[in-house]
Amino acid sequence: MEYKPHICTSECELTKYTQMVVLVPQFLQPPFSSYAPPSRRSNFKMVRTCISSSSSSMDAQTKRPGFLEFPYLSTPHRNLMLELVSKIETSLVSQLLPPSLPPDVQYFQNESGSSQGTIHIQSGNEDSMVDFILGSWIHSKLPTGELNITTLTAYLNKKTDAPRFLLEFIQSSPTSLILLLDLPHRKDLILNPNYLTTFYMDTQLDHLRQQLEKIPETRPYLPSSLYIRCALSPTAVSIRIDCGPTGSGRIDEVIRDHVSPVAKQMLDIWLYKCAYGKRELMEEEIIDLEKRDALVNKKTLDIDLASGLPRLFGQDVANRVIEPLEKYFKA
Amino acid sequence: MEYKPHICTSECELTKYTQMVVLVPQFLQPPFSSYAPPSRRSNFKMVRTCISSSSSSMDAQTKRPGFLEFPYLSTPHRNLMLELVSKIETSLVSQLLPPSLPPDVQYFQNESGSSQGTIHIQSGNEDSMVDFILGSWIHSKLPTGELNITTLTAYLNKKTDAPRFLLEFIQSSPTSLILLLDLPHRKDLILNPNYLTTFYMDTQLDHLRQQLEKIPETRPYLPSSLYIRCALSPTAVSIRIDCGPTGSGRIDEVIRDHVSPVAKQMLDIWLYKCAYGKRELMEEEIIDLEKRDALVNKKTLDIDLASGLPRLFGQDVANRVIEPLEKYFKA
Repeated sequence: MEYKPHICTSECELTKYTQMVVLVPQFLQPPFSSYAPPSRRSNFKMVRTCISSSSSSMDAQTKRPGFLEFPYLSTPHRNLMLELVSKIETSLVSQLLPPSLPPDVQYFQNESGSSQGTIHIQSGNEDSMVDFILGSWIHSKLPTGELNITTLTAYLNKKTDAPRFLLEFIQSSPTSLILLLDLPHRKDLILNPNYLTTFYMDTQLDHLRQQLEKIPETRPYLPSSLYIRCALSPTAVSIRIDCGPTGSGRIDEVIRDHVSPVAKQMLDIWLYKCAYGKRELMEEEIIDLEKRDALVNKKTLDIDLASGLPRLFGQDVANRVIEPLEKYFKA
Repeated sequence: MEYKPHICTSECELTKYTQMVVLVPQFLQPPFSSYAPPSRRSNFKMVRTCISSSSSSMDAQTKRPGFLEFPYLSTPHRNLMLELVSKIETSLVSQLLPPSLPPDVQYFQNESGSSQGTIHIQSGNEDSMVDFILGSWIHSKLPTGELNITTLTAYLNKKTDAPRFLLEFIQSSPTSLILLLDLPHRKDLILNPNYLTTFYMDTQLDHLRQQLEKIPETRPYLPSSLYIRCALSPTAVSIRIDCGPTGSGRIDEVIRDHVSPVAKQMLDIWLYKCAYGKRELMEEEIIDLEKRDALVNKKTLDIDLASGLPRLFGQDVANRVIEPLEKYFKA
């Protein structure tokens, strides 16, 4: 039970740390299964088949790390990401189409190589309620230190109005990070109290949020974008974890012992209740849903990518990456 | 610039402090002008005229304190409330009808007298965009200490879709309190980004929120009701101020020097931009607005009053108070 749609609120944070605005939320890079620890490889059959010999843990020709390498994350952080991807793959294996992004969007870097990024997208097939799954990581060497942004998001299509899944880590020092973990709503919760009850009250999502809130090193994090604040659900985990200058061991512990179990539970809830839960929608509801999804997607793309990527990668690389994404976001 | 619609999130807090759930948000009691410091009396002409001789600073017959007495608040807290009420009266003097609640709803108490409450409501006249202004205070002697809830809220009618105003203080100890201060939205902000820009970005409301966030004794407060969380705007001040067991002087200072100027600025913004700002609405928008307002009002009444008042005042008194309020909330 651990999944949040791609709603990134990181500009504010990044501005503070790096004087850059970067909001790259919902991406997984190349095939999920381009890298995985041996014990988990068995879960990654579909994607591994799709990419066949064209990709591997580390491309022998280019030495470009794939999405699932997470080469700049700590072990607990990488393990969490791999477990979540594995869980999605296992659960949705029959529903996802092969990834189709161009190789220079699956992996990209700036001229100097100080910034690297990976994006992975897989659409759902025609029987699926999944619109697409998107994961990414970005690594950038900045004057103020290293920046790592890691995201995993899932968008559902108009067959259901169930929430999305969003997970985003923004780490600008070895001992602190921002975590967004949510099932963002796709209907106005004021007008639809039954939706609030079904997806947020009955699922006890707030108990999971409270578990992380209780950790002494966490405090609430409010995204600088007001639109992003509106897009987060009332049970969103939106926190900053700061373990102090000597807390690298502690932050690993927090991720392994606290964030990881909560994230996995939230993804389980999303898979069971949203990706597989049946919803009966009236024609008018579907029209409203499409309108709302399109607006959220456009804003997400604008706020997260169009404003952030150029600062880390330059305008040309940013344009190359954003253009093929627009068809997914229908922006 | 300081005004928030009646959205109360206090149950959680009250439960912690008093093991009771009380959510009485948006009320001012009897006539605004039943009491005011000499320097401000000149502002209270309208209400004073309305109530004429039937009410005074302290009713000579019954010794029942009126709404504007705020008999259990500290001086800075009382002064702030009086200034806000004065500002509303001065600005809307030609638009408000006389208060019409029965005397036993304007003031009420439980059998033992350990809980007292006042409610003041004034509707807007037919030329006004104000639906009604509602203020209240509740005082209760509980086993855990004294509880004081003070609210001031303003509801607009269907001539405008502009936000409401909400101010609510929940004080369960002499040195700590919860503050909600907001202009709650009346449209889905995801579907209406221009509304977000007009009322929340252009007004720089988040800067006011940040001013209070920076005070060392404050920390974010998340209402226990998920519905209430949804009803608050993305720039809502929702904080707990805790000055520690010896901080009674400091909490007065925080109210006087920090909360008061922010609250007054937010009310100014509301008056200028919402209560007086012209909005052109299509017929369909008005229908949607009425539907949304009705839902919010019903939920507000259920969450704040129907679940909270009986615990402090008993079911009979609660019924007597809630029944005449229903016509205002159209619940």
